[in-house]
Amino acid sequence: MAKILINGSETDRLDALDRGLHYGDGLFETLRIRAGRPRLWSAHVARLAHGCERLGLPLPAEALLRDEADQLCGGMADGVLKIVLTRGPGGRGYRPPHDVAPTRLLAVFPAPVHAPEYATQGVAVRLCDTRLGHSPALAGLKHLNRLEQVLARAEWDDPDIAEGLMQDIEGNIIEGTMSNLFVVQGERLRTPALSRCGVAGVMRAQVMAAAAAQGIAVEEGRLGLKELAAADELFLTNSVIGLWPVRRFEGNDYAAPGPLTARLAAAVEAADD
Amino acid sequence: MAKILINGSETDRLDALDRGLHYGDGLFETLRIRAGRPRLWSAHVARLAHGCERLGLPLPAEALLRDEADQLCGGMADGVLKIVLTRGPGGRGYRPPHDVAPTRLLAVFPAPVHAPEYATQGVAVRLCDTRLGHSPALAGLKHLNRLEQVLARAEWDDPDIAEGLMQDIEGNIIEGTMSNLFVVQGERLRTPALSRCGVAGVMRAQVMAAAAAQGIAVEEGRLGLKELAAADELFLTNSVIGLWPVRRFEGNDYAAPGPLTARLAAAVEAADD
Repeated sequence: MAKILINGSETDRLDALDRGLHYGDGLFETLRIRAGRPRLWSAHVARLAHGCERLGLPLPAEALLRDEADQLCGGMADGVLKIVLTRGPGGRGYRPPHDVAPTRLLAVFPAPVHAPEYATQGVAVRLCDTRLGHSPALAGLKHLNRLEQVLARAEWDDPDIAEGLMQDIEGNIIEGTMSNLFVVQGERLRTPALSRCGVAGVMRAQVMAAAAAQGIAVEEGRLGLKELAAADELFLTNSVIGLWPVRRFEGNDYAAPGPLTARLAAAVEAADD
Repeated sequence: MAKILINGSETDRLDALDRGLHYGDGLFETLRIRAGRPRLWSAHVARLAHGCERLGLPLPAEALLRDEADQLCGGMADGVLKIVLTRGPGGRGYRPPHDVAPTRLLAVFPAPVHAPEYATQGVAVRLCDTRLGHSPALAGLKHLNRLEQVLARAEWDDPDIAEGLMQDIEGNIIEGTMSNLFVVQGERLRTPALSRCGVAGVMRAQVMAAAAAQGIAVEEGRLGLKELAAADELFLTNSVIGLWPVRRFEGNDYAAPGPLTARLAAAVEAADD
């Protein structure tokens, strides 16, 4: 069972006219909890602030968010904290109200149950049929309009497939349903550009920073099935799972973890705040 | 104040973990109420059924929906009924639950206050900066992922501008933030194709049927600013407003209502169930 605070009060009920429900008019963050603390707090708050700026949403004071997060996370050895921020009540008409009273929802959940060998021996990944549309206005944001991810994740039921990769409408590989993707080939470390669709993950940025600190430049660009087939290593990232090496995708087997993946996983783990 | 039924019970509170909030995982319909009855009921239910099929959502029994709608609409001379259908509770993880318990929300609102001359003398319309992304998986559906419309509607505050038209990422004119568009030029009646983005409105379909009944074929295709500038008449449609002639757009003035617009408005009014 989740424990939830909405605008600071413990409750499991939301205003039925909230714009988050009616339009997906808001943003979210998903943080890993370890030893009673949300990890990568500053990076998540910075992304939330950037999203608020792009959507014209008022950002709550960081101290308030942190206070509420601490209330929920305290005493949890491991778990997940979700922060949802919406433009608040107003269920008829797209026009944002003049006096926005945003809704701030924080909830904690048990850590997801993934086989421990996902991180140590890699995961099998499929290619999804559902494509990511191009929407420059929303690209990169972790907003609440997530139907494409829902449809993609509904495509498979096989417990041996840990994640699905999604292409955009032009056939570029963009990301997993819940993770970002990195591709290692020789000396090159690449990740899909997210200017037209996709979510710019906090763990993705951590990996890019860790690589830069080791003198490895990450190229953001277009990657297709051909580039993935030719890769030496593939890995997936998100704030909850960390790094997962990919051991199989589209009939190809990969070193899992490959040497660069292992190095970056260790660096990210060590650098964690 | 809205009156709301959620899964048949009067309440203004929703489960805070509903997938409608967390992912926009659902659909909605907006119906005009006249003389205690929701208008175009069958057409709205048919669109909802089509949307459920595309999203893999269970459709509630029509009799149940109608019974709840009648409870809310009875005695209302004029108003708006909103039906929201979501994939129900489940706030962590995109994967739909095995046993979906959908959320059915029906709410009634007062009719929107629009100047009566909008329908009789036409409206001034602007061009929005926010573009509609291409998402074939979701195109045409009245789903809950509506951030692009929210951003577009937030662009202007001038009460003399009744609606904004949106282009897609290639510059095709697709629709208004809350309405569909028709373009009359000479003998031709055209409306933008909605295969890559946009909402296939119930009133749009009514107008197409009314035109067909009068021997006028509606062409669905690509329309740009050039075609709008060269048009004789433009009009907007949705289930709540009916038909609004456009009298001004991008520095061009149009007959409002033009003769074909007036004929179709009368036909749709007469044909209404």
